[in-house]
Parts: sequence; structure tokens; C-alpha cells
Amino acid sequence: MAEVEVELIRIVINDTSAEQVIILREKGGKRAFPIVIGIWEAAAIHRHVMDQKTPRPMTHNLLAGVLEGLGVTLEKIVVHDVRQNTFFAKIVIKRDGNLIEVDSRPSDAVALATLLKAPMFVEERVFGKIIPPQILKFMEEEEDEEEEGKEED
Amino acid sequence: MAEVEVELIRIVINDTSAEQVIILREKGGKRAFPIVIGIWEAAAIHRHVMDQKTPRPMTHNLLAGVLEGLGVTLEKIVVHDVRQNTFFAKIVIKRDGNLIEVDSRPSDAVALATLLKAPMFVEERVFGKIIPPQILKFMEEEEDEEEEGKEED
Repeated sequence: MAEVEVELIRIVINDTSAEQVIILREKGGKRAFPIVIGIWEAAAIHRHVMDQKTPRPMTHNLLAGVLEGLGVTLEKIVVHDVRQNTFFAKIVIKRDGNLIEVDSRPSDAVALATLLKAPMFVEERVFGKIIPPQILKFMEEEEDEEEEGKEED
Repeated sequence: MAEVEVELIRIVINDTSAEQVIILREKGGKRAFPIVIGIWEAAAIHRHVMDQKTPRPMTHNLLAGVLEGLGVTLEKIVVHDVRQNTFFAKIVIKRDGNLIEVDSRPSDAVALATLLKAPMFVEERVFGKIIPPQILKFMEEEEDEEEEGKEED
């Protein structure tokens, strides 16, 4: 299965909602899609992207500490499927040249990849399975909000 | 340094606060103390203690998956120090008979221990460093709340 390298181009954090959004786009391409994630994971990804350190190891730092302590590295993360708007991912760990895959939510996978600066991939078929209207709807709503500004009040 | 085995005897979850509390007590003894943790970690510990499964792997499940994928086990967790009311812990991983220690917040360590049913320890000196009035104050406030019931409204 062909894997397409992607990059995180946006984190949309909405304090009044439990659901946050990250947008992944293919590197050097135009295909992009949103993934809905939790506020806690969104905050972690934001910290990692901004290179913000915390005084204590947060949970993804603990996970990174475990990998380091065991002398293994994060090779990559892969979003490999989407079913009923739910995305499935895995993290791929390298030990002595062997690759070990572990199931993960995309949010944790992206949080770990941004922390450890590991590459992120999406399997080609995932792009084919995303329902275009849903992406467009998301983009339109966002544009509407920007245009309307604070008229909602 | 002597390690005292402890058990989690209570999780105090307060939805209106960002700070939650877990209480650890020495096994077969009376010494107990509270640790303030975040709501997200408290929810994870609660799920693990209640043996509640989630449809997707949460972050501590991912960490457990990584340990399993690498063929290593969680030997124990240890709360080894407290400074200015902040507790410090480590998780101890066993690989081929060798022990590897990784720094952790107590909340993540307890979350992982409750998930993987690994034993929990506190270094003896930690008991000596906890300021007794703070524990008593915590206990008194809790009793007051119970006595007063809903009169606060």
C-alpha cells in the first residue's frame, strides 16, 4: 500500500468545544483533510509544534522517555484507514533494524510524531475513502465564520 | 532506599475543578497521603480501576501497547520524592531481566500501574517529607463537606 507523506498544516482549537480539529495535507500536494481530536491531545500537539517545554513529563513525554530508555526510535506514524469518519493510525517503532507497529488514535500518533519530529504518512486509499462533501462543508463553515466575524452576537 | 508498597484507596473527582486527588495508602498500614492530579489522568485511572474498556486505544493504552509490542513488562512504579508538595515518580520496565527506569508524573505512573495491574511503591523517605498538617487539612475539609451536605446552595 502506497504511503503519502503529510504535514500538519493547522490546529483548530475551540475552547468551548470538546472536539478540536487538526488538518493534514500531503507534502508538496493539495489534498488535505481534517481529523477531529480531543482538547487534551490538541493541546499536546500545539505544545510540541511550538516547542514548548513543560516542567514535568506529560504523558507523550513519558512515552518518548520509554522509547529512549529502551533504545528504540519512532520511525514514522501512519494514518492507515478511515471508517465512518473515524480515522485509524499506527506508530511504527524501529528496534535493531526491525519495525514494530502499534495501534494508535491519530491524535496520539501525531502528538508523538510532532514531539519526536518523526515523519507522518497517510495511506493512499484513505484519501479515496474521505467523503469530499464533508471536507468542503468543514472548509465552508470556517470561511463563513471568518466572513461573518462577530455578527453572531 | 526502602520501598513501601501502597494501594490506591480513593479517587476524588471534582468536575468543577481542574485539580483532582488520588489517595495512596501503605498496604497493611495506616499511612496515606493525597496527590493532586489532572482531570484527564484521574479519568484514565478511574477507567482502569473500573476495568472500563474504550473503543479506541487511549494514550495510556498506547503506552501499554508499546511495552507489549517491544516484549517488555512494567515491573512496578515508584513515587520516590516530594518537593514543595510536588511528587516525583518513575516507572520501572523489565527487559530480559534488566530494569530500566523512566521519569514520570505520579498520575501517569498510577494510570499505567492500574491499567497493567503492576505493583505501586513509595520510598520510605517520602512519608517523612510529607507535611502532616496538609494531609489533615485535606481530610478535615472533606469531612466538613460531607457534614454540611448541600447546605451550601
